[in-house]
Amino acid sequence: MNSFGKNFSVQIFGQSHGEYVGLIIDGCPPGIEITADDFKEDIERRKPGAKGTTPRKEDDIPEIISGVFQEKSAGAPITILFKNSNTRSSDYEKLRAVPRPGHADFVAHKKFRGFEDFRGGGHFSGRLTVALVAAGVIAKKVVESFSEEKKINIKATILEIGGETDLEKGLQKALDAKDSIGGIVECKVSNLPIGLGEPFFNSVESLISHAVFSIPAVKGIEFGAGFAAAKMFGVEHNDSIVNLDGTTATNNAGGIVGGITNGNELVFRIVVKPTSSTPKEQQTLNVESGNVEPFSVKGRHDLCIALRVPVVLEAVTAMVLADLMMEAKSYQ
Amino acid sequence: MNSFGKNFSVQIFGQSHGEYVGLIIDGCPPGIEITADDFKEDIERRKPGAKGTTPRKEDDIPEIISGVFQEKSAGAPITILFKNSNTRSSDYEKLRAVPRPGHADFVAHKKFRGFEDFRGGGHFSGRLTVALVAAGVIAKKVVESFSEEKKINIKATILEIGGETDLEKGLQKALDAKDSIGGIVECKVSNLPIGLGEPFFNSVESLISHAVFSIPAVKGIEFGAGFAAAKMFGVEHNDSIVNLDGTTATNNAGGIVGGITNGNELVFRIVVKPTSSTPKEQQTLNVESGNVEPFSVKGRHDLCIALRVPVVLEAVTAMVLADLMMEAKSYQ
Amino acid sequence: MNSFGKNFSVQIFGQSHGEYVGLIIDGCPPGIEITADDFKEDIERRKPGAKGTTPRKEDDIPEIISGVFQEKSAGAPITILFKNSNTRSSDYEKLRAVPRPGHADFVAHKKFRGFEDFRGGGHFSGRLTVALVAAGVIAKKVVESFSEEKKINIKATILEIGGETDLEKGLQKALDAKDSIGGIVECKVSNLPIGLGEPFFNSVESLISHAVFSIPAVKGIEFGAGFAAAKMFGVEHNDSIVNLDGTTATNNAGGIVGGITNGNELVFRIVVKPTSSTPKEQQTLNVESGNVEPFSVKGRHDLCIALRVPVVLEAVTAMVLADLMMEAKSYQ
Amino acid sequence: MNSFGKNFSVQIFGQSHGEYVGLIIDGCPPGIEITADDFKEDIERRKPGAKGTTPRKEDDIPEIISGVFQEKSAGAPITILFKNSNTRSSDYEKLRAVPRPGHADFVAHKKFRGFEDFRGGGHFSGRLTVALVAAGVIAKKVVESFSEEKKINIKATILEIGGETDLEKGLQKALDAKDSIGGIVECKVSNLPIGLGEPFFNSVESLISHAVFSIPAVKGIEFGAGFAAAKMFGVEHNDSIVNLDGTTATNNAGGIVGGITNGNELVFRIVVKPTSSTPKEQQTLNVESGNVEPFSVKGRHDLCIALRVPVVLEAVTAMVLADLMMEAKSYQ
Repeated sequence: MNSFGKNFSVQIFGQSHGEYVGLIIDGCPPGIEITADDFKEDIERRKPGAKGTTPRKEDDIPEIISGVFQEKSAGAPITILFKNSNTRSSDYEKLRAVPRPGHADFVAHKKFRGFEDFRGGGHFSGRLTVALVAAGVIAKKVVESFSEEKKINIKATILEIGGETDLEKGLQKALDAKDSIGGIVECKVSNLPIGLGEPFFNSVESLISHAVFSIPAVKGIEFGAGFAAAKMFGVEHNDSIVNLDGTTATNNAGGIVGGITNGNELVFRIVVKPTSSTPKEQQTLNVESGNVEPFSVKGRHDLCIALRVPVVLEAVTAMVLADLMMEAKSYQ
Repeated sequence: MNSFGKNFSVQIFGQSHGEYVGLIIDGCPPGIEITADDFKEDIERRKPGAKGTTPRKEDDIPEIISGVFQEKSAGAPITILFKNSNTRSSDYEKLRAVPRPGHADFVAHKKFRGFEDFRGGGHFSGRLTVALVAAGVIAKKVVESFSEEKKINIKATILEIGGETDLEKGLQKALDAKDSIGGIVECKVSNLPIGLGEPFFNSVESLISHAVFSIPAVKGIEFGAGFAAAKMFGVEHNDSIVNLDGTTATNNAGGIVGGITNGNELVFRIVVKPTSSTPKEQQTLNVESGNVEPFSVKGRHDLCIALRVPVVLEAVTAMVLADLMMEAKSYQ
Repeated sequence: MNSFGKNFSVQIFGQSHGEYVGLIIDGCPPGIEITADDFKEDIERRKPGAKGTTPRKEDDIPEIISGVFQEKSAGAPITILFKNSNTRSSDYEKLRAVPRPGHADFVAHKKFRGFEDFRGGGHFSGRLTVALVAAGVIAKKVVESFSEEKKINIKATILEIGGETDLEKGLQKALDAKDSIGGIVECKVSNLPIGLGEPFFNSVESLISHAVFSIPAVKGIEFGAGFAAAKMFGVEHNDSIVNLDGTTATNNAGGIVGGITNGNELVFRIVVKPTSSTPKEQQTLNVESGNVEPFSVKGRHDLCIALRVPVVLEAVTAMVLADLMMEAKSYQ
Repeated sequence: MNSFGKNFSVQIFGQSHGEYVGLIIDGCPPGIEITADDFKEDIERRKPGAKGTTPRKEDDIPEIISGVFQEKSAGAPITILFKNSNTRSSDYEKLRAVPRPGHADFVAHKKFRGFEDFRGGGHFSGRLTVALVAAGVIAKKVVESFSEEKKINIKATILEIGGETDLEKGLQKALDAKDSIGGIVECKVSNLPIGLGEPFFNSVESLISHAVFSIPAVKGIEFGAGFAAAKMFGVEHNDSIVNLDGTTATNNAGGIVGGITNGNELVFRIVVKPTSSTPKEQQTLNVESGNVEPFSVKGRHDLCIALRVPVVLEAVTAMVLADLMMEAKSYQ
């Protein structure tokens, strides 16, 4: 299914080389201010253009076709379209015989019995993350509207590229190798209330990871101390509460205990694999000839897709938090 | 919410020191053989008793009170109870003034406004994983019933404890330090069909991580090469297809591309934090006095909860796979 | 699926001649007072014993095995069991060759491929309505806790039996004919707030009818003027608003416009078909012999199941209202 | 929420006087042929123009903007837009002070705290049924693709208008009275397989009524003998099985027993209230002046909305059946 969220529900649609990609938000509280301008900043942050990103450019002007009335959410489903103006399907059609390594080409063909839109990855394309970003813009507004004393703030940043915390250096590695490269992105959320999260199955970690793994190229997630906890003792990992507001001396839990926010900063990191579409030559199967042959991607692609992930990561995080905050209101 | 799964839906219930914990499976296909004996092996694997695990022992004999008729699933909801025979609430009642570090005591109190069952962690207790294990026993049978040529096999093993792959050595670290300790558990599934997973939001990674983070103490997950991918180039990470059945030369994707199984082995790892209840003295807040005071857990607890996680990890994995396999049948 | 409700979710389970029937409420707000005594009145109202009802008697003492702590809802799933003490399966086993007319025997056998629990209607039995009644007891408390100035009141009554508004007379018809008989039940809810209901698909009518048609033997529902509206003109049917609080001069809409409560009394009626198990001889197929043969039901059955429906109707109505009131809170 | 269906899920969006109304189908099996032409017939049947229907005309040419590739469903969400070309908002703006009797104006204003799109009924408008019809076109194709020996056929017809089975006569009543008028519509489905429906809560009656009550103006539904069953004896109502294929001698159950299709014709009727917007003068509250005043609707409206309902009724029925047929496949 292509929707996510119980209360603040986001449905996305579209294929890379179709006419539009877009989204519907169902359940947005009424009265939230929404104009096309509000999307500019985050849409811009997702755009390619920087060193290491694809030269494919889209205007990405949101067309809000339902649910917003007099510049405010009206209580009806909010539908937003993004036109796919810049498609070059001919780049892709010749690839049908050679499922691109690391891509969904082969599995989509099997799953959808040959009926899938294979152009540019179809519905599996990173192009759809523009819809996530747009959902995030509204989700952030909803989350902000629920802020108490201090404004809830969601911020994702790149921690390393190709193992380098100096990001220029990491990117240069990729340019030198004429190959794509992976990275790590961290997300932090401050000023969250205590008590978000719905154990047993809808812990904060469960919902965030569910949403995060829908971002193409993400292959791992860790909260707080994360994988480092495997080597820690209990007294090292436990975060002692030091204040009646729930503040802890350390934050190895990443702001979540028992699946519930504890009032400390929410902290998690994800790993983004190197872009599957690398300019470097690879060996892979030609399904028509049955032979393993050399193959190289033409098209327009990012060397390091991690560079464009932070704003998408913020978006899905905001979606989860808006949903959980609405949930918490339902029984209070 | 305390249910998970769209087609093969599992609802769990119970508190650590309540009368019963249990589960309902709604949506199990009819005709699956189910007897109390079938649960023995996995329930036994979850049981404490080994070095480093809690001396609290439960008989854990499943009482199947609905949905099974003449030793087969009947198409109605399957309800299974486990009696909590061995509870010692007095151990816990005195802790109310001191929310245990690393536990949900403090956040549950805030979230449920003081009405939570605070005894032994209540509904947040690891005790509830017995219900997951029971769900897993049936889920494994369902998954097996869907196997094609080769039997689908789900197997989780402990990779390391306290940073040691020699597990005895890792556990000795904890015993020497009189402290609890973390670990890493890996799960592998072989012989899966190509095409499971429902992008955009219900990728295999999304659903597995959603389920996995409901297991108490899990703080991270990675698929295939996982966090190592952050340092890899595209040609290193890409798994070249080498056979028409989808077999790849490497398996950095962990058997999932585009969120969909690709016919190779499904591989993922999780980190289990050290048990929050450590015998070692800690400093933490007494919410009545308002002072940070020394504190140590009595009760009965595991030094390394990771030791008991593999069978639970298999269970939630089986739940996800049963659900996805039923989903795939719905549109074929 | 055997669960209903988005926020106040009710899962039921059990078969007529199994060990228990029961229910889980997931999502009940914490702090609601719940004791076994609270169920007495409504359970008693559902019980047989009166003229025209089955002599099968059950103690129907609720066993609350999870989710209630110190006599209040604790924020965890509430599980309640009812023991099936009074089962006589031998009455039913001989019927396998003759699917009872009007019952689910034949379709259940086809649907579940012969694995269904056929004893006494199995999971299709009216026995399961005891679980609905129990869910209703808690739902009513939740709805009441949300009442504003005046207490929300849910009340169902029998309007007619066998076409007679004098119910004794209607029942006598059945006794004289030695046959079962149908009836009409009406439900009214006063003091509801304006604004419940979630168009487009979750209108109040949609959700109530969804829940109501899960009560065995219900074959129709109408709101307000209902089927009489087919003969009405617009000015007759339209309810003019006459007060700023939304009060209307008439109530042909039954308290719902555009799928949303309008602050007037919610009014709807259902038809309950005559009990399928009638003592009178019928002709029907023997699936073993392939012949249409005379058939008559022994067992213990109600002559007029409508007599026992009012409390069940209140229960499912309360479930819907609790759910919608929690929904409304989520975005306010 | 504005989506319906577990497997074949339909999300609708748009307001009467917004830029577009539309829908997304998520879960449509791949390979179903879909072209813009396929929608013509049903869209035409919903269109006004006949005597007694609104003179508002829309081209209603479906713009399929995602999910269809090479004229077949591709396994991705199918999004379809309908442009609202023919809107005259000025007709409505002056009505704000006078909530139209029988309309959602007043309740929407309360529910959405004044942020609702009030033009032409906004999201509550009958205009949105064009999206249902479009969903129905695809749902019918899916249902047909599941047909076994004989093609499943869904057909709705008007039974009576204003109490007259001679429809011209009924309509003339309305024209003579210069008032709107109600009616009854019947839907029949032939050649359904035995076994659709998912008790306890997702009986065929439950799901169909849920969907049907989302059609504006529907106020009642009855299956088979329906309300007439209230006066029937058991032996009269029971449908004796007379053939091993499940054929019954009568069809008082309307093709559903125990909530499950029994292989006989599915039959149900709905009542459609008279159009709320009647040209006749009414008395109602002016919320600004606080006085009850004479009021009459200008705008363009149907005298008998029931005339346009049959194709919408078929559509929601097809949606439910497609969903249930996919559900049945999931566990077989």
